[in-house]
Amino acid sequence: MELRLAFIGLGNVARAFARMIDDRRDQLSDGYGLKLRTTAIATGSHGCVLSDGDIDLRAAAACVERGEPLTGLPGVAAISDTSGLIDRCEADVVFETTPLNPTDGEPAATYILNALGRGMNVVTANKGPVAFAYRRLKALAERKRVSFRFEGTVMDGAPVFNLVEYCLPVARVIRFSGVLNSTTNLILAGMESGRTFDECLDEARRLGIAETNADYDIDGWDAAAKAIVLANVLMGADLRPNDVDRAGIRDLDSRETQAAAAAGRPLRLIARAEGSGDGAKIVVGPERVAAASPLGSVRGTSNVLIIETDLMGELVIFETNPGIEQTAYALLSDLIRVHEEAKSRR
Amino acid sequence: MELRLAFIGLGNVARAFARMIDDRRDQLSDGYGLKLRTTAIATGSHGCVLSDGDIDLRAAAACVERGEPLTGLPGVAAISDTSGLIDRCEADVVFETTPLNPTDGEPAATYILNALGRGMNVVTANKGPVAFAYRRLKALAERKRVSFRFEGTVMDGAPVFNLVEYCLPVARVIRFSGVLNSTTNLILAGMESGRTFDECLDEARRLGIAETNADYDIDGWDAAAKAIVLANVLMGADLRPNDVDRAGIRDLDSRETQAAAAAGRPLRLIARAEGSGDGAKIVVGPERVAAASPLGSVRGTSNVLIIETDLMGELVIFETNPGIEQTAYALLSDLIRVHEEAKSRR
Repeated sequence: MELRLAFIGLGNVARAFARMIDDRRDQLSDGYGLKLRTTAIATGSHGCVLSDGDIDLRAAAACVERGEPLTGLPGVAAISDTSGLIDRCEADVVFETTPLNPTDGEPAATYILNALGRGMNVVTANKGPVAFAYRRLKALAERKRVSFRFEGTVMDGAPVFNLVEYCLPVARVIRFSGVLNSTTNLILAGMESGRTFDECLDEARRLGIAETNADYDIDGWDAAAKAIVLANVLMGADLRPNDVDRAGIRDLDSRETQAAAAAGRPLRLIARAEGSGDGAKIVVGPERVAAASPLGSVRGTSNVLIIETDLMGELVIFETNPGIEQTAYALLSDLIRVHEEAKSRR
Repeated sequence: MELRLAFIGLGNVARAFARMIDDRRDQLSDGYGLKLRTTAIATGSHGCVLSDGDIDLRAAAACVERGEPLTGLPGVAAISDTSGLIDRCEADVVFETTPLNPTDGEPAATYILNALGRGMNVVTANKGPVAFAYRRLKALAERKRVSFRFEGTVMDGAPVFNLVEYCLPVARVIRFSGVLNSTTNLILAGMESGRTFDECLDEARRLGIAETNADYDIDGWDAAAKAIVLANVLMGADLRPNDVDRAGIRDLDSRETQAAAAAGRPLRLIARAEGSGDGAKIVVGPERVAAASPLGSVRGTSNVLIIETDLMGELVIFETNPGIEQTAYALLSDLIRVHEEAKSRR
């Protein structure tokens, strides 16, 4: 099966994914019967291009890294903007990885709606549209008989949505808790060793982990949005980020953080959801947790999610020090899932 | 789709599973289009019975619990032994849950071979046959176009094999480590609080966690067999339990265990596998691990597995205090998988 790929956004994650699939052309072809051809790329500041052939992904990634426009690539036609590209690209799978808009998930949500509406499968690593419009996007994908996948929105490439969907059949998720935001975790760990909040935040920025606007991390918005996605997808809730009872870590000082860690009860920014009827109640805020526990043993950029189910009891999934490659892997794993779903629909 | 079920063994796990599916007849029918009918049950000391109808699973479980023969159930015909039952039962799915034979996995391996050879899908929670005959069983299942599933053999109902098969596509497992045996973990934790080895072992027996012959747990054989199953299935190795470099916890004393825990480096019985070419090297033995780490934070009967992959980095799966219900859930999750695979073969 040949799949034509379109990229909406060609940032760090999309470029790592592009190199990952380019490196594994033979494995994807031999192991999965999957041939890939890139026919469209839309970027915010390097132009939007279409091709009847196969755009060289490495050349496109190098173009972006050199700060050059994609329109210089061989065999491509320039398109004025992203919306125009979605209307005309006729791809099989659209990879949406534009920057997060924490206010309403736009314009990514509209991009995804338009792509799904035109019968294209969509994979996103952007939590905004899923946090604000999951039901609408999911319903449209079902109506159009295409796939909408978003494994990379929570815990990078660690399988969370796929785990519950494919590996926990019949069971129902009744509550969850987790450390879902790397920036705050890195800051808290740094403060435990006596550094100031600002020194730790600077380090998170240097490592490329903090969101463009780190306020979203520090004030618990990122963890809240991820908890919303988890609750809406795994527990059938229909909440928005503003429905979360949310506190961040801005007011914690180093002394308090150090004392908690020294007492074997370090502070972590915890997201919790408790199911109730068809919905869920979500709380995000700093908590003291046991050091020798799944929540307490999370270090650095690691994330952890504890899922409690009716039939399978409690299951914990822990992702150790993820980076860009892990998020790129989420796109790859979603691509394989889209391919499997497309085969089963035939 | 109606599936006819046969039970080889009706011990604690199989009875918990029987009640689980009996409780969820409507959910399985409405949610999965799955109708179940039990047509055969073989036990070691309560007889073997066949039926043209649907054997009442609750009545059969109650029979075993009262120590009565199954031949007293309404509408069943008595069969002389398990092999005869497999030859005649014509079921769609056979649930093999006979007691573990750690020497060669028999007679369970032969039961499974015969069932697969007759074109029946097989689900087992018995690590013996998988540790000793995985390649042979898998090849036969493929030739006969039936399913062979064994999620319950390692970490009870926590998805381990399904996780890698369905949620980590393209990625390759390059090494793993884990705390896979509950009995030794319970004993080590007990010794940390100053109790003797024998007191702790008695507790594990009272909780029904220790294997019938606890030597297999204590000497690391159970952890070794599980590591073999993991390495053979997830890493393509072809090892047998005797290939493991194995040490148990028999020679550890309470003082050493307490001192290690007090120093923040508690002792755990760790199984490790490292891939090499098409095979793997497996070591099982006690190690000092960091308390505030996934391996160190395992308490009570909890298990943990750390999987390192080429594409997705390190992923940890942690099962909190599993009991019989979790192992029963593994059979249910395998049943759903068998059903999905049967549908996709049509």
